[in-house]
Amino acid sequence: MFMRIDHVGIACHDLEERIAFFQRTFDLTVVAREINEEQGVKEAMLRISDGQGGGSYIQLLEPLGPDTPVGKFLAKRGEGVHHVAFGVPDVARALEEVGSRGVRLLDETPRHGSMGSSIGFLHPKDVGGMLTELVQAAEGQPETTQEARNADT
Amino acid sequence: MFMRIDHVGIACHDLEERIAFFQRTFDLTVVAREINEEQGVKEAMLRISDGQGGGSYIQLLEPLGPDTPVGKFLAKRGEGVHHVAFGVPDVARALEEVGSRGVRLLDETPRHGSMGSSIGFLHPKDVGGMLTELVQAAEGQPETTQEARNADT
Repeated sequence: MFMRIDHVGIACHDLEERIAFFQRTFDLTVVAREINEEQGVKEAMLRISDGQGGGSYIQLLEPLGPDTPVGKFLAKRGEGVHHVAFGVPDVARALEEVGSRGVRLLDETPRHGSMGSSIGFLHPKDVGGMLTELVQAAEGQPETTQEARNADT
Repeated sequence: MFMRIDHVGIACHDLEERIAFFQRTFDLTVVAREINEEQGVKEAMLRISDGQGGGSYIQLLEPLGPDTPVGKFLAKRGEGVHHVAFGVPDVARALEEVGSRGVRLLDETPRHGSMGSSIGFLHPKDVGGMLTELVQAAEGQPETTQEARNADT
């Protein structure tokens, strides 16, 4: 079901400061920035590697306000890992399968994620306390990745 | 510096129960089990994918007692993501570089990690609240992985 660890989502108070830290400390590069009003976050994706069906990233998340999910998370838990996302070939099918195995779905059907992806979240209490996201990368991404992998070998 | 997301370490109260959950829910396979007395944990590695220089895994961690780091984490935060590990080509060099950039090291020199790897932890307060591990996979792992990637392409 899982093709890769797609990203680790990290909640922070100041996106620009945190981006600068990850860039200078770990030589990472920002490949996308977005404001997702629906989820109430301003975010940046920092690329780590290519992978099957898409890349692997660190996702930095700054809430758009205190009443957003990430804003509430920060107030309760402080800065740190907010969720972990796994790449799947078909997110609608994966949500259906996982739901049929007894995990509560926070998204019954896929919605829009970072960089044109389709995503769905699973209830953290049903996944060992880990807020879990399933990600189907946007069309085109897998091909790019495959080219990059071919060039490597 | 980072070649892959090596693993996400998840703290749990009952390792066997949690392994069974991840197997039946996400079709994952346990590739290694270990007791690490030094770190005070019983652990299992569930393989997600191949990657540059090693694989990507979910690592499930059950503390050997309440006075261990993972035992204290569970008491304070409950079950969930305990740390995130990134694969590097040379962990001693990576620790030196990251330390020279102002991040406090929990391990000044590498120590033994899962599956024969060499690892070092970084202070979570210096990495945005995320307990961060650097991992150099054991010799032999990269070759195996490279073969697997070649077979794919």
